[in-house]
Amino acid sequence: MFQAVVKTLCVASTRSVSRGILCTRHYCKKTPTKLRVSEAISGAELGANIKVQGWVRSVRPQKTNLFLNVNDGSSLQSLQIVATSELNDPLLTFGSAVEVTGTLKKSPHQKQTVELQAEQIHVIGECNPVDFPFKIKERHGLEYIRQFPHLRCRTNVFSSLLRIRSEATSAIHSYFKENGFVQINTPVITSNDCEGAGELFQVEPPSPENKEDQNFFSVPAFLTVSGQLHLEAMSGAFSKVYTFGPTFRAENSQSRRHLAEFYMVEAEVSFTQSLEDLTKVMEDMFRSATEQILAHCAEDVDLFHKHVTPGHRDTIDATLKRKFPMITYSEAIDILNRSSEKFAFPTDWGCDLQKEHEKYLVKHCGNIPVFVTDYPYDLKPFYARDNQDRPNHTAAAVDLLVPGVGELCGGSLREERLDLLRARLEEYLDLRSFGSVPHGGFGLGFERYLQCILGVDNIKDVIPFPRFSHSCLL
Amino acid sequence: MFQAVVKTLCVASTRSVSRGILCTRHYCKKTPTKLRVSEAISGAELGANIKVQGWVRSVRPQKTNLFLNVNDGSSLQSLQIVATSELNDPLLTFGSAVEVTGTLKKSPHQKQTVELQAEQIHVIGECNPVDFPFKIKERHGLEYIRQFPHLRCRTNVFSSLLRIRSEATSAIHSYFKENGFVQINTPVITSNDCEGAGELFQVEPPSPENKEDQNFFSVPAFLTVSGQLHLEAMSGAFSKVYTFGPTFRAENSQSRRHLAEFYMVEAEVSFTQSLEDLTKVMEDMFRSATEQILAHCAEDVDLFHKHVTPGHRDTIDATLKRKFPMITYSEAIDILNRSSEKFAFPTDWGCDLQKEHEKYLVKHCGNIPVFVTDYPYDLKPFYARDNQDRPNHTAAAVDLLVPGVGELCGGSLREERLDLLRARLEEYLDLRSFGSVPHGGFGLGFERYLQCILGVDNIKDVIPFPRFSHSCLL
Repeated sequence: MFQAVVKTLCVASTRSVSRGILCTRHYCKKTPTKLRVSEAISGAELGANIKVQGWVRSVRPQKTNLFLNVNDGSSLQSLQIVATSELNDPLLTFGSAVEVTGTLKKSPHQKQTVELQAEQIHVIGECNPVDFPFKIKERHGLEYIRQFPHLRCRTNVFSSLLRIRSEATSAIHSYFKENGFVQINTPVITSNDCEGAGELFQVEPPSPENKEDQNFFSVPAFLTVSGQLHLEAMSGAFSKVYTFGPTFRAENSQSRRHLAEFYMVEAEVSFTQSLEDLTKVMEDMFRSATEQILAHCAEDVDLFHKHVTPGHRDTIDATLKRKFPMITYSEAIDILNRSSEKFAFPTDWGCDLQKEHEKYLVKHCGNIPVFVTDYPYDLKPFYARDNQDRPNHTAAAVDLLVPGVGELCGGSLREERLDLLRARLEEYLDLRSFGSVPHGGFGLGFERYLQCILGVDNIKDVIPFPRFSHSCLL
Repeated sequence: MFQAVVKTLCVASTRSVSRGILCTRHYCKKTPTKLRVSEAISGAELGANIKVQGWVRSVRPQKTNLFLNVNDGSSLQSLQIVATSELNDPLLTFGSAVEVTGTLKKSPHQKQTVELQAEQIHVIGECNPVDFPFKIKERHGLEYIRQFPHLRCRTNVFSSLLRIRSEATSAIHSYFKENGFVQINTPVITSNDCEGAGELFQVEPPSPENKEDQNFFSVPAFLTVSGQLHLEAMSGAFSKVYTFGPTFRAENSQSRRHLAEFYMVEAEVSFTQSLEDLTKVMEDMFRSATEQILAHCAEDVDLFHKHVTPGHRDTIDATLKRKFPMITYSEAIDILNRSSEKFAFPTDWGCDLQKEHEKYLVKHCGNIPVFVTDYPYDLKPFYARDNQDRPNHTAAAVDLLVPGVGELCGGSLREERLDLLRARLEEYLDLRSFGSVPHGGFGLGFERYLQCILGVDNIKDVIPFPRFSHSCLL
């Protein structure tokens, strides 16, 4: 992970010297070992001569000593630097980039276990604290920092979020890999529209004069709203496939729930026998990813659960302890109709579940994720498998509703019976003609998943560069 | 990985029975264990009563016995099924989907170690061999199968490719994770154009009448050509970041080298001291990913190296054995000028290296990957770091050239000096104002990487759903 560059003679490359990075006072001492802050903090190199590079998170000059905190994004914790006052420098400001060499020591203070006794501090990149939008010792709100998409990674809360997001991505890939799924890069540009009349973005080179004459792709092309159709094609050769990538909706919404570009995990499983073949994957993936995040990003998650969304940790703990309950849509309607709550939207059989209904159902089931299955046939898209039941005609579809967020996953068994499908859609037929098998799949909104485990209210705060109507910063 | 569903009484779910999936003759015997083909072939469950689901790859009826090969995408190898002739069925055709239950036995034949003695064979999905574009026992060329984007995953060669691509993706993520990089999902839709006047796709909802009035994002928005700018923003808080996702070029080309949508790995490293900080990452990543692919997909890679691109294995073995040589652009120009080869393009200092030059340099260095560094300043984009050398003015940029493919990676130290940058571009300045540090990064074309390790000639054969001018199938 780090390079133990320990040589008996210093090798001074031209470029290093010209930048003054090498310590001339200690020329011909051992070259210090370059460590990341997280490695320094781990304490494994106590007593060693090390070099750390990062950004100043606090400066506290005292009579004889100077205290700095330096962070390089490798962990939430910064490394405390202790130096004599003579190493102070007016350029050593909040936000500036520094390189510090010195000796790693046990810290006498309770707040940290190690500190770096500095022998040299070098300011590599200046930062004017007047222009820098974040102020030392101030806690800036999520809305404020959102205005600075290129700088918000410098705040504790957003750098924690990005480490968690990176770990969550990795955890989801691990789950699928360990369970024998093949990852398919489904295309972003597509001539299909999976969900029917979705809110699509169209794609063309910017040459309006001949646009009507000929499309770049010879057909109108759009940004994908779902990789399902492409995954279904692949599920005709691999019994388990998934995709995890960006998805697009041209929804004209400024709400805290919508993005024009968001990430979706989608999976298809062949030879399904019932919806449980899908709900098992959804629940196992949720559990396995969340446990990995809690284990590997404990500090970062704590920052959210303690300071951003207090109380949310209890919800997550309860979620991980219990098996997710499963109710049918018809049972859900009964629960809503038996409740004393006044709902704004109707709760008759056949009506779609609204946000308020989803919230009530999650509460009713103990404030943990709940599966709702077997929705009215007419509410679901053409490819959902007909349960052929009467009088309440349903399709084998399932949604996973979670606390705070509502619908996290949606899936269904896919209609594999050619005769039933033929009646509904011509377009979809060729996939079913050659060795068609019962299969099913689902999608999970990745940003919603992050909101769910962290309790974050606004979807724009869990993605590095949010895109929504009237906003495409950077 | 698989569910060991062994119960003393059969539990017949309504749905299973209605499909005739459960074997009525053996009703109340043990429920067979469901195995994937790769698990069955591993031989771990010899003697067990198992169930396998997949697609028929060959049917060989003989006097008393019927032999089938069944594949479910979990491995290149199919499972051999042996049955008595009475289990034959006219619907048991090449391409049909079947479920087979029986006993896993040692095979008396040399070709495989285990076979499944079938007790029941159930055709789940029919396949009309006349309409099915692939024919039993025929080896179809890559060009032929490319015409059927939804079905080519059913061929050996393309299912091997997809397993390798999935493993390669996973291997690249692993490399970065193990080396402390944070993954950033850089946006697909952007208001920037990283490389200057690239061949961009524009993005808008399809409503031509008011398009001129107002953009959906209030500004013109494009599909990303590179995540570099967004990564650079993040490299101001994390010293190591990367992204791995789709990238777009509206290049009007039908060539075997170009796609409109392709995948790129991009990384940025802060606190760099020289180009070696980048070339080390490129070489380590290449080596580590390739070794993981060769170890985990040995059979699939062999299919390519034996039948698709014979002789290519030697190139890969040589590549992994030696450290990649590094030459400067000026040395490269000398090599070209000293050679006896007649080049179509000029080889004067200051000219860009052409495909023919890259090929010659790779050959010259022993037909292994070679780094070319320090290109003429005027050939490289504004953000490449000025080496401030004379008379041959160069920038700290590097390309990795590989056998067969040419340029696989391109990177540079980024100009972090505000005064030098200011002279070149206003747009880029805000990122450099707050704690700017020396950093650098590179991009790797993922499809080119797959071409490089497999020897595949046409880029359209290493991506699930190729997009290029006049083609957007599915």
